[in-house]
Amino acid sequence: MVEGILKGDVTTLSRAVTLVESLAPAHQAIAQEVIEKCLPYSGNSRRIGITGVPGAGKSTSIDVFGLHVLRQGGRLAVLAIDPSSERTKGSILGDKTRMEKLSLEQDAFIRPSPSAGSLGGVARKTRETIVLCEAAGFDNIFVETVGVGQSETAVHSMVDFFLLIQLAGTGDELQGIKRGIMEMADGIVINKADGDNIPRAQLAQAQFKNALHLFPMPESGWLPEVLTYSGYYELGIPEVWDMIDRYFEFVKANGYFDLRRARQARYWMYETINEQLRANFYGDPEIEAMLAAKEARVLASQQSSFTAAKDVLDIYFKKNSLNI
Amino acid sequence: MVEGILKGDVTTLSRAVTLVESLAPAHQAIAQEVIEKCLPYSGNSRRIGITGVPGAGKSTSIDVFGLHVLRQGGRLAVLAIDPSSERTKGSILGDKTRMEKLSLEQDAFIRPSPSAGSLGGVARKTRETIVLCEAAGFDNIFVETVGVGQSETAVHSMVDFFLLIQLAGTGDELQGIKRGIMEMADGIVINKADGDNIPRAQLAQAQFKNALHLFPMPESGWLPEVLTYSGYYELGIPEVWDMIDRYFEFVKANGYFDLRRARQARYWMYETINEQLRANFYGDPEIEAMLAAKEARVLASQQSSFTAAKDVLDIYFKKNSLNI
Repeated sequence: MVEGILKGDVTTLSRAVTLVESLAPAHQAIAQEVIEKCLPYSGNSRRIGITGVPGAGKSTSIDVFGLHVLRQGGRLAVLAIDPSSERTKGSILGDKTRMEKLSLEQDAFIRPSPSAGSLGGVARKTRETIVLCEAAGFDNIFVETVGVGQSETAVHSMVDFFLLIQLAGTGDELQGIKRGIMEMADGIVINKADGDNIPRAQLAQAQFKNALHLFPMPESGWLPEVLTYSGYYELGIPEVWDMIDRYFEFVKANGYFDLRRARQARYWMYETINEQLRANFYGDPEIEAMLAAKEARVLASQQSSFTAAKDVLDIYFKKNSLNI
Repeated sequence: MVEGILKGDVTTLSRAVTLVESLAPAHQAIAQEVIEKCLPYSGNSRRIGITGVPGAGKSTSIDVFGLHVLRQGGRLAVLAIDPSSERTKGSILGDKTRMEKLSLEQDAFIRPSPSAGSLGGVARKTRETIVLCEAAGFDNIFVETVGVGQSETAVHSMVDFFLLIQLAGTGDELQGIKRGIMEMADGIVINKADGDNIPRAQLAQAQFKNALHLFPMPESGWLPEVLTYSGYYELGIPEVWDMIDRYFEFVKANGYFDLRRARQARYWMYETINEQLRANFYGDPEIEAMLAAKEARVLASQQSSFTAAKDVLDIYFKKNSLNI
C-alpha cells in the first residue's frame, strides 16, 4: 500500500484514506503503520485552508482556484473538515459534482469530509490524510471548511495559508462570519466582484483593509491582503494566486513557514494528549453523574466552581489511584 | 470572619483575601470555608473588566471612573490580574498611589494582583476575591488587566462588561493590543481626547466603529459602542458610564446577564478540572522526559503527532491503572 501511494496511485491513496477514516481498530492499526511509513515523504506541499460562510461561493471558487493551480503544473488534493456533515446530512463536499471542472481532472483528488465523530476526530483524520496525499505527490492541498463553527481553528492549525472568502455587503450581510476568523486569515478575498456588484465589492475591500490595520501585525510579518474576484466569471483568479505565491516566498524566506509547521506538529501532539485526558475523565459514568449534580449546585450558588471541581477530581484520582 | 465580611468590614475583608492568596494548605482550607459561606451573599455587583496596553492611561482612568461610581452612591472594589507581576516586579497595581483619588476614599477597596503562580491560579484567586468583595457589600467590581497577554480571556470570563481602553493613533500606535481582544470588548473607549488630540481621537473612534461593523453581532445583542474621553482632564466620564449603565439595563432585560454569569460559573468549574487533569499528567517526571523525546521525533518527522501522543498516554494510563 505504501509503495502504491509513493508511486502516486490514486486508487491506493483512496483505499488508504478509507482506512484512516475507518473506526475499526484493525483498520486503524494498518492506517497508523501506513502513515508512519509515508511520514518521511510528506511535507512537500502548500497547505491552504479555505473558509467562508455558506453562500460565499466556496465550491465555485475552489473549482476555479484549483484549475488555476493545475494549469501551473501542480497536483491538487481537496479535503474538507465539516464535523456536522453526519448530523445534518449536509456535507460540504459530499457531492463531487459541486466541483464540476476539478472532478474531471486527473491530477485532482477530491475527498469529502470524514463523517461522524467529534471535531477532534475529524480534524485528526484530515491531518493524517494530508500526510498520505503529500506522500502520493500532491503538492497543493486545499482544506475547505464552512466558516461558521469551531472547525476553523482546527483547519488553521494544519495549513500554511488561511484564505477567507467574503461577500460584499453591508451590516447584516457581513455579519455571517464567526468572530475571530478574520484575525486568523492570511488573505481575505471578496467574491462576486462582477458587473453591477464591482463597486460594492471594492467598498468591502476598503472596509476590510481598514479593519485589518486596527489589528496588530501577525507574527508572520505578513500583513493580510484583501482582494476582489469573481469565481463564477473567473475574474481576478491569477491575482489571488499571485498573492498566495508571494506569501509562500515571504514566509519561506523569513523562516515563519518552518516555525508554523513545527508548532502545528507540536500542537497536534499535545492537543491529542489533552483530548484523551479529558475523554478518559468525562467518559466515566460515575464522574458524569457527579458532574451533573455539581453543576446544578454551582449554578444555584450553593458551591463555588473551584470546590465543586475539586470534589469531582478527588473521586476520579482516588478511584484511579493517582497521586495528586 | 464571615460575620465581619458580611458587615462590610474592610479590615476583615483584607485578611480573608490574604488567606485566599496564601499558598499554605491550612490557609487555603479556611479560605475555602469562608468563600462557601459568603457565596449565598455574592453576585449583587456589576463586574467590569478594564484592559488597555501600557501607556493607555488605565490607572488615571480607573481613578476617575471609580470616583464617578462612588459619587453615584456605590461602593467599589478594584482588583487586578497580572500573572507577570511576580516575575517582572512590575505589578500593575502594586502601588496604591497610582490611584491617588480612589485610595483616599472610604468606599473603595483597592487590591493589587495576587502575585506568583500560573495565570489559572492568579485568575482563580481573583474570582474568589470577587465573591468576598460582593459579600462585603461592594456593588461595583473593577478587574484590571494589562491587555498584552493571556489574562484578558480570564478576565473576560469573570466580568459582566469588558471595557477596552485605546489610544488615538495610526498604524503602529494602534497595533499594541493583542489579537482577539477587540472582539471581546463590550465597549471601546479612546483616552486622551483633549486639546489638539481631539480630532485624532475622533478619527480613531470612527475607525473602530467601522471595524466593529465587520464583526458579527455579539450574542448579547449589544453592539459595542465606541466613545472618546480624557482621563486626565476628566472629560466625557459620565458618557462612558452612561454607556455601561445602558449595557446593564439591556442585558438584564434580555436575559443575557444571567446567561453569561451561569456560563462563567460552569466555565470555571470545567476549566479547573481540565487544568488539574493536565497538571497531573504533565507534572509526572517520567512523562515529562518521555514527552521531550517524543516531541523531538515529531519535529524530525520520524513519528506522527498522533502516535507520539498515544505512546505517552499508554504509559501514563498503564502506570495509573486507568482503563482506556
